[in-house]
Amino acid sequence: MTAHAGTDTRPRIALTLGDPAGIGPEIALAALASAEVRAAMRLVAIGPEEFRPESAPDFDSGSEDLAWLATPGPKSWAHGRPQADCGRAALDALAAGAGLAREGRVDALVTGPVSKEALHLAGEPVEGQTELLARWADVRRYEMIAIAGDLRVMLLTRHMPLRVALEHVHADAICERMRLFDETLRKLGVTESPRLALAGLNPHAGEHGLLGSEEADVLEPAVRTLRGEGLEVHGPVSPDVVFLDAAQGRFDGVLALYHDQAFIPLKLLSAGRGVTLVAGLPYLRVSPVHGTAFDIAGQGKASPENLIQALLQAARWASA
Amino acid sequence: MTAHAGTDTRPRIALTLGDPAGIGPEIALAALASAEVRAAMRLVAIGPEEFRPESAPDFDSGSEDLAWLATPGPKSWAHGRPQADCGRAALDALAAGAGLAREGRVDALVTGPVSKEALHLAGEPVEGQTELLARWADVRRYEMIAIAGDLRVMLLTRHMPLRVALEHVHADAICERMRLFDETLRKLGVTESPRLALAGLNPHAGEHGLLGSEEADVLEPAVRTLRGEGLEVHGPVSPDVVFLDAAQGRFDGVLALYHDQAFIPLKLLSAGRGVTLVAGLPYLRVSPVHGTAFDIAGQGKASPENLIQALLQAARWASA
Repeated sequence: MTAHAGTDTRPRIALTLGDPAGIGPEIALAALASAEVRAAMRLVAIGPEEFRPESAPDFDSGSEDLAWLATPGPKSWAHGRPQADCGRAALDALAAGAGLAREGRVDALVTGPVSKEALHLAGEPVEGQTELLARWADVRRYEMIAIAGDLRVMLLTRHMPLRVALEHVHADAICERMRLFDETLRKLGVTESPRLALAGLNPHAGEHGLLGSEEADVLEPAVRTLRGEGLEVHGPVSPDVVFLDAAQGRFDGVLALYHDQAFIPLKLLSAGRGVTLVAGLPYLRVSPVHGTAFDIAGQGKASPENLIQALLQAARWASA
Repeated sequence: MTAHAGTDTRPRIALTLGDPAGIGPEIALAALASAEVRAAMRLVAIGPEEFRPESAPDFDSGSEDLAWLATPGPKSWAHGRPQADCGRAALDALAAGAGLAREGRVDALVTGPVSKEALHLAGEPVEGQTELLARWADVRRYEMIAIAGDLRVMLLTRHMPLRVALEHVHADAICERMRLFDETLRKLGVTESPRLALAGLNPHAGEHGLLGSEEADVLEPAVRTLRGEGLEVHGPVSPDVVFLDAAQGRFDGVLALYHDQAFIPLKLLSAGRGVTLVAGLPYLRVSPVHGTAFDIAGQGKASPENLIQALLQAARWASA
């Protein structure tokens, strides 16, 4: 399957192995062995030398099919728990992948799972990889889009108490997210005229003020502003209808107002095939939805299916 | 299909036609004509004389298969909008059905859809039929259970702004609902040892206090109290996991804390086959999940499928 530079139109995708103590390395190796993955893309796997399969030549060798970029590994480590050395190894692989992506040497970056706690132990008190990638790329305007089939959801708020999320429902923030969402769906080639929906906050989107005032006070003005700018934005739509509508193809994207409004439908619909991407980075970054799964790491039980989906989806978008 | 009293073991189900201006009468007549429905139960249809099919003898005739209990109809009316006369007709049918159920002359009551606005025009400023049935039965402890396949959800709060719902998350209320839920699942014959789950309020059920305090302050104490009483109650479980787990059979019921936490997953999973029942009434009451659908009423477009599911489900539970 080796192709010559310049004639191979398959996108080149970087894949980081994630935390060595988690399921990242085993599912990455399984994904690299997938015929579907190999047919769809050229790959640069990034992680400690000890995981490199014999079939993967060094990145510097100029291989156009599959290459390995070795980054420092942990000195001693065990499966299944957060360790400073493993966090450091995950950071080193991520930094190398981000570098290749920023320099345009790969068309997309797919990231294996890391442990937030291991990153903290390694001296990086961050929420996760997304925050690091944005910092390294010097980007302040970015947000995750989570995808399950035809349902694409951007979040207004993520990891905060529900009570606090309610205080973050502001028209300015909604407008900023929607503009980024619109831009990103066009760039990804999903559609040239994104049909976006804003989820309501209250039951039945407030039922004309009977069940809450945020729709009239905040959400409707935001929708009017965005429409005035030429965006096709619908809503606020009843939260118990909008995700079903989008999954059935009536909207190209939904802006959800709080974590579970997004992840209850996403997890029901994804069935292990969901992926996330970060809008706003100067390159394409895609990840599986699961974490390090420390409880089953190193036991050969982990399924590479979600990571394979992330790779295939990244290749499709990179080709768009 | 006429059977003799005493030898026919099929349950007897009362079906009200709902608001004459909505889709209730047309879907009720279609359901009465369904061979599957007729094979599974004896029926008493309740509504204005003008809708009675020729095949339905008067309730007083002693028919054991299908009978019609005529209640006052509207004098003049039109499809597709709330009218005082139609609200009154819906109330009369509901009162007659509730009477048969309270007297034990039927094994369950299935209710066609009514218009809240028409009830208000008719002088009953209520939220819906459930509130009326509870009042007429002199019951204060009652709550809806919404069902989609194997997912059964009771709600802690229903029609109120999300901001207000957060103020209603109290351990006492949770314990009361869970006890009623447990009782009801046993009575319905779903299982003799219900495995109940309490949904968390915050992302990842608070992630050990990082993402909210209600889990530790309110939800966990409620779960401990209930376990102390011998109930099998799990959680608080991460909201984006608990409905999927229940739908896959790991829990017999989930207590949701607010409207959309329940109805986002229910509507995604029901695909038009969801039903609701009211726990706490002295008889079995089941209803379809849709409303009067004024926009398509009287046009022959409405599907009776959801009402048929409600009837079949009522018959199964009544036989349990």
